[in-house]
Amino acid sequence: MNDAPIGIFDSGLGGLTVASEIVRALPHESILYVGDTARCPYGPRSLDDVREFVLQIGSWLAGKRVKMIVIACNTGTAAGLVAAQRTFDVPVIGVVAPGARAAVQATCNRRVGVIATTGTVESGVYSDAVRALDAGATVFSVAAPKFVDIVEQGLHMGPGTVEEWIADSSDVFVRPAFYEIAREYLDPLKRAGVDTLVLGCTHFPLLAPAIGQVMGRKVRLISSAQETAREVAGILGARKWLASKDNVPRHHFFTTDDETEFARLGSVVLRKPIKSAEHLPVSELEAMTIPPMRAEVAAPGLEEEGVACN
Amino acid sequence: MNDAPIGIFDSGLGGLTVASEIVRALPHESILYVGDTARCPYGPRSLDDVREFVLQIGSWLAGKRVKMIVIACNTGTAAGLVAAQRTFDVPVIGVVAPGARAAVQATCNRRVGVIATTGTVESGVYSDAVRALDAGATVFSVAAPKFVDIVEQGLHMGPGTVEEWIADSSDVFVRPAFYEIAREYLDPLKRAGVDTLVLGCTHFPLLAPAIGQVMGRKVRLISSAQETAREVAGILGARKWLASKDNVPRHHFFTTDDETEFARLGSVVLRKPIKSAEHLPVSELEAMTIPPMRAEVAAPGLEEEGVACN
Repeated sequence: MNDAPIGIFDSGLGGLTVASEIVRALPHESILYVGDTARCPYGPRSLDDVREFVLQIGSWLAGKRVKMIVIACNTGTAAGLVAAQRTFDVPVIGVVAPGARAAVQATCNRRVGVIATTGTVESGVYSDAVRALDAGATVFSVAAPKFVDIVEQGLHMGPGTVEEWIADSSDVFVRPAFYEIAREYLDPLKRAGVDTLVLGCTHFPLLAPAIGQVMGRKVRLISSAQETAREVAGILGARKWLASKDNVPRHHFFTTDDETEFARLGSVVLRKPIKSAEHLPVSELEAMTIPPMRAEVAAPGLEEEGVACN
Repeated sequence: MNDAPIGIFDSGLGGLTVASEIVRALPHESILYVGDTARCPYGPRSLDDVREFVLQIGSWLAGKRVKMIVIACNTGTAAGLVAAQRTFDVPVIGVVAPGARAAVQATCNRRVGVIATTGTVESGVYSDAVRALDAGATVFSVAAPKFVDIVEQGLHMGPGTVEEWIADSSDVFVRPAFYEIAREYLDPLKRAGVDTLVLGCTHFPLLAPAIGQVMGRKVRLISSAQETAREVAGILGARKWLASKDNVPRHHFFTTDDETEFARLGSVVLRKPIKSAEHLPVSELEAMTIPPMRAEVAAPGLEEEGVACN
């Protein structure tokens, strides 16, 4: 059990920023990553469709006997976290609660900014999560879809190897066009006086230095990726499920689209070379048998024994 | 600011279990503790009344320029946390969210037991908080009011000094009567198969060894006190508000009832001698001017600039 892999998935490459932090925080853990690149992006799809994708990939990962599942995708978390937690036996976490918690801890003026995809902003998951922890906080959310495009474009513009791309990435982002777009998104947040900004999309940590430059030094940037990795460590630690120190960790990557392209671009996001990725056909995911959900209230008969079951 | 005290309060002595963990986790911090012993217990009172008490004591602490407020009381948290967060400028935390989070991290079979006062069980705050983090968890709650009585009785039966009482405390709790009551409360939870039990009342950590004996070794006991102390450390750390290492910490205790009795019994709960406590008249609390609550939505005009404020 302890040496079983952690299952991580996303609509595509962005979740590798989460995988990267998990690998860094827990170097003895094996991971099994699924990037649903063929159906990417999840953002513009209906929540019902995304929830179904989450349950399909979760079922596939459960079949691979992962010890926990990380929905490393904001839209996936907004649409499918609750359903997945009620469906699978292993613990399932998303990226929203860890990021919200870190933001609440960090903000001094209790004015928290969130940049995310349109779907995530419209779902309101971040403002709900922040205010569940601090009812007196004010959350300012901005949909920043062009940031996703910029990251995707930056990845494809990369010269091909991880090292070169990372070395050149400052050029990609220093383009005047980026700063125009960034100011359009971020100036209202600066005027709103936020002192903490949640990077509420798994693509955005790749833009963190540039976003930080626009927001200014005093604004603390919160990466859901780092905080989610801490949550994974907390859960595995509390349950004594951490991999043994002599476990030889294996990192397996699956994509529903082209394996070579995934390995190439994924290496940039993961900041570690992905030697190979395997193809996972969408048809295999669509054919998954999804386990029935748990009833909301289990064992109501216990009420008779004086135990309120809720 | 950093060397300002942490404000902690409870209906009486129970919150000193939380203060004790905060002092242990953060030895450089000053604390200012209010035990509202004259109006204790809060449990049987209306939520509206308790919320008012929370806002009165919070206002008094804010006037003493505390850097954060800890509601070290489950009933107080259930009744007044949200109102207090919307009223005060400094961060306010309760004991429920930290305990729920620790329980979700620790449970392997996702069957979580909670023992608490009747008021806390009826408010449903623990099951809400657990299921907000894991929608697939089942929470079994038992109101255990006699445990509160046993702790109070145990404290009053103590021979007078901290050392003697602690040395003798096993006798107090080894009485057959305790085990009869404990089995009445805990047997249904054992039958429900919980693998994690939240001690959802600040009195209960004092009974932890005896409760553990009844529940069996395999059941993990979660003390809100420890987890709340971790949350305090997390917030102060993230905001860079920790006291400097050369700060000489001061621990001040206030009670709305008899100072001598509070210092004597409080020393037992704190597990450190309280040399003296000061009297804080209830009339002074009742006369507090409570600041107005923040509007739920601030600065709605920002919507015009493309920022959703929610």
